[in-house]
Amino acid sequence: MSDLRNQMFYATPEQWEAAVGACREHFGERFQTAAGICRQHANTLTWIASEPPQAVLFATSTDDVRRAVTIAAEYRVPVIAFGAGTSLEGHVNAPAGGISIDLSRMNQVLEVNEQDLDCVVEAGVTRGQLNRHLRDTGLFFPVDPGAEEATLGGMAATRASGTCAVRYGTMRENVLNLTAVMADGSVIKTAQRARKSSAGYDLTHLLVGSEGTLGIITELTLRLYGQPESVRAAVAPFTTLKGACDATMEAIQLGLGLARIELLDALQIRAINQHARLGLQETPTLFLEFHGSEMATAEQVSIFEEIARSNGATAFEAAAHEDDRRRLWRARHEALWACRAAWPGKLTLITDVCVPISRLAECVAETEADIEANSLIAPIVGHVGDGNFHVLAMFDPDEPDALARVKRFADRLARRAIAMGGTCTGEHGVGQGKMDLIEAEHGAAIAAMQAVKRALDPLMILNPGKIVRM
Amino acid sequence: MSDLRNQMFYATPEQWEAAVGACREHFGERFQTAAGICRQHANTLTWIASEPPQAVLFATSTDDVRRAVTIAAEYRVPVIAFGAGTSLEGHVNAPAGGISIDLSRMNQVLEVNEQDLDCVVEAGVTRGQLNRHLRDTGLFFPVDPGAEEATLGGMAATRASGTCAVRYGTMRENVLNLTAVMADGSVIKTAQRARKSSAGYDLTHLLVGSEGTLGIITELTLRLYGQPESVRAAVAPFTTLKGACDATMEAIQLGLGLARIELLDALQIRAINQHARLGLQETPTLFLEFHGSEMATAEQVSIFEEIARSNGATAFEAAAHEDDRRRLWRARHEALWACRAAWPGKLTLITDVCVPISRLAECVAETEADIEANSLIAPIVGHVGDGNFHVLAMFDPDEPDALARVKRFADRLARRAIAMGGTCTGEHGVGQGKMDLIEAEHGAAIAAMQAVKRALDPLMILNPGKIVRM
Repeated sequence: MSDLRNQMFYATPEQWEAAVGACREHFGERFQTAAGICRQHANTLTWIASEPPQAVLFATSTDDVRRAVTIAAEYRVPVIAFGAGTSLEGHVNAPAGGISIDLSRMNQVLEVNEQDLDCVVEAGVTRGQLNRHLRDTGLFFPVDPGAEEATLGGMAATRASGTCAVRYGTMRENVLNLTAVMADGSVIKTAQRARKSSAGYDLTHLLVGSEGTLGIITELTLRLYGQPESVRAAVAPFTTLKGACDATMEAIQLGLGLARIELLDALQIRAINQHARLGLQETPTLFLEFHGSEMATAEQVSIFEEIARSNGATAFEAAAHEDDRRRLWRARHEALWACRAAWPGKLTLITDVCVPISRLAECVAETEADIEANSLIAPIVGHVGDGNFHVLAMFDPDEPDALARVKRFADRLARRAIAMGGTCTGEHGVGQGKMDLIEAEHGAAIAAMQAVKRALDPLMILNPGKIVRM
Repeated sequence: MSDLRNQMFYATPEQWEAAVGACREHFGERFQTAAGICRQHANTLTWIASEPPQAVLFATSTDDVRRAVTIAAEYRVPVIAFGAGTSLEGHVNAPAGGISIDLSRMNQVLEVNEQDLDCVVEAGVTRGQLNRHLRDTGLFFPVDPGAEEATLGGMAATRASGTCAVRYGTMRENVLNLTAVMADGSVIKTAQRARKSSAGYDLTHLLVGSEGTLGIITELTLRLYGQPESVRAAVAPFTTLKGACDATMEAIQLGLGLARIELLDALQIRAINQHARLGLQETPTLFLEFHGSEMATAEQVSIFEEIARSNGATAFEAAAHEDDRRRLWRARHEALWACRAAWPGKLTLITDVCVPISRLAECVAETEADIEANSLIAPIVGHVGDGNFHVLAMFDPDEPDALARVKRFADRLARRAIAMGGTCTGEHGVGQGKMDLIEAEHGAAIAAMQAVKRALDPLMILNPGKIVRM
């Protein structure tokens, strides 16, 4: 039982029973308290221990969420929004108990406005589902955090990004508006469908990345893009990590229209070679993708090859066929599973930082030195066009100090990134895992965050124990 | 004297005298109460009547602003941030009196990080100054609201955009972080220099567009871009407004890398022909600019010509020389002055709306019909790639009902845009002029905006009487 639950700030047992009664009456079978279902709605993918909710509501409409939050406010019951449960920092844990609101049944694509290059979806639509839905329109949604089954509501709530952000931006740039249920049960729409607006405070961006602590996102309007006429991929192995980072920086400075530029270190390449039988050279390697007209991508590939070779690339292979391209990116997306397969029995602490690109090579080098000095097994993969990289630190759950050691390593990494003008998380979010670190990163601005939280959720029922300490 | 000043919510005469005393002591000559100086710091460019502050502080540092806000909080004195005074909706008026904090002396470019494509500037740096500073680096800052002398702090505070937003985004997309003085005198930095982050609430976007009502921006980190290898411009006159709008929509859907796409109606072309002797056909016309490699811009120009002709363009002229290109864009930027010159003695109500691009042709057509039906003189110019357009409604200040008539017209226009899924202001902001309209646009979300305002400025000293009614 966590500190939060001990505070007695939330529902008494009598209040909890009353809330359960009200939920049963309103939602019937959609409201569940079975332990197995509750356990499925706690965090499972990371080092952070699971803290299951006491009940789960399978919401099917914004009005369901509105009613649930209204009941929760009446009885001071925490509510935790749940999408696909793929988050990495304990976002869906219930340290103060309460109700997990599972939005996965809100999975309708409500509108596709082809002329406006946007669509309106319910929060539980997954990115894979949306792109299958769009296939025949010639449009696509580019934000790609890896997991096909990540929900768009969850991606917005954690300000997700991934491999295509270098060209198309993150959820921050690609959500035009949101419908959200606020802590008082009011339903708001944060903006219209216009591409830009100066009409008042930017509530869209306030909710994007707020991890369910300021409101529960139930619908989103998203930007779409035309499928590029031409897509080319390439692989460039380098003699050094620094060479790969420098090539990246040079390409970004040139404004080369890279759609993806991913760095994998030698250890990560070895793991995916084993997992996906790719037969790549086991040195630091960039995976690249270029989108545009036939002419534009051909030009980009040839310019990038020149940049790569002048920074020590030992080869430059363009993927000739779509099959090769898909195999390459599947391998990249399965990096985590490749690591788990390569080191069976070990668990992974996955962390991410993002630094100004001028500091990328230095930050990666210092991190490699730290890994070496501490005898860790910790492959590096990164969306390096944005200065963002992940470390997958493997540890043996049976070894007493192992988790503590990788946590200390991750903490040093985050503080190194902050000291270089970067952030302790480029895309995974704060959740429970990085609350100390954002205090280090934001200093006095934390007070403004706390004031906003208090203003919009005075009873602190929305996903308590995440992002900012109250 | 406005309602706000009558509320007696703010400083009593004794408190005001004490605040003046404290400011004189701290700031010496930088603190001025002369009526002439105060008048220069009230709104002058629009139909909204000037409401001068009672004093002006010429701030030279973040610490000056911090001290001024601390004094203001102690004595309940309103403070109004002032950049260049080019805003159009009464943002710099002082309806409750108080101190205008003039940031124009905070005009240092503090850092240019060429490798990271960003820079750090004080809030009073103008966009013209920044681009002159950058000239030799091969970089530029693209947000271009027209006025060379607009300050970057003011542009951030009003979420400005302009002609290049279709390619490079608005201030919303181009501010990486801000330093701001909050209502309690604390100084916060909203984020680091990393290109992306999931570390907590997005205070950067909360302050961008908040018009000095949540904090006073004193420094900004901005994204920069490489100057394009090739810049081509073109002019395409159309037989109908609809043809011009449809061509725009088609080009956007194709993902053609337009850097600027501006619509000017026949009346506006007539005015700039007179003003700048351009000799253009007096029909609805698109002004275009393409940025990229030589190859890419050549391809874009040729594709766009095809689109234009298939939508009824009667000509398509590429500007061969840089001089022609500069003359063209100077003429576009001087549209307002051209109108003033064409209708001497008249004043202008300038308004702006933004709609989803699929509704652009319809919104413009209904607006033209409204202009016609009400016998108004009201040229239209628009950043139509974003669905954003302006109407410059001329009126005779000596004619009794004239201002009221154009105000009613502007109100109908805004409500038309909102009904089409658009916004009452794409880039001019709310200020005093559109407070009713954002209530119509945002509905229940206004309560969330009010809660945020109350949380961050409980004494309501920051630019009172703007954006949201409290």
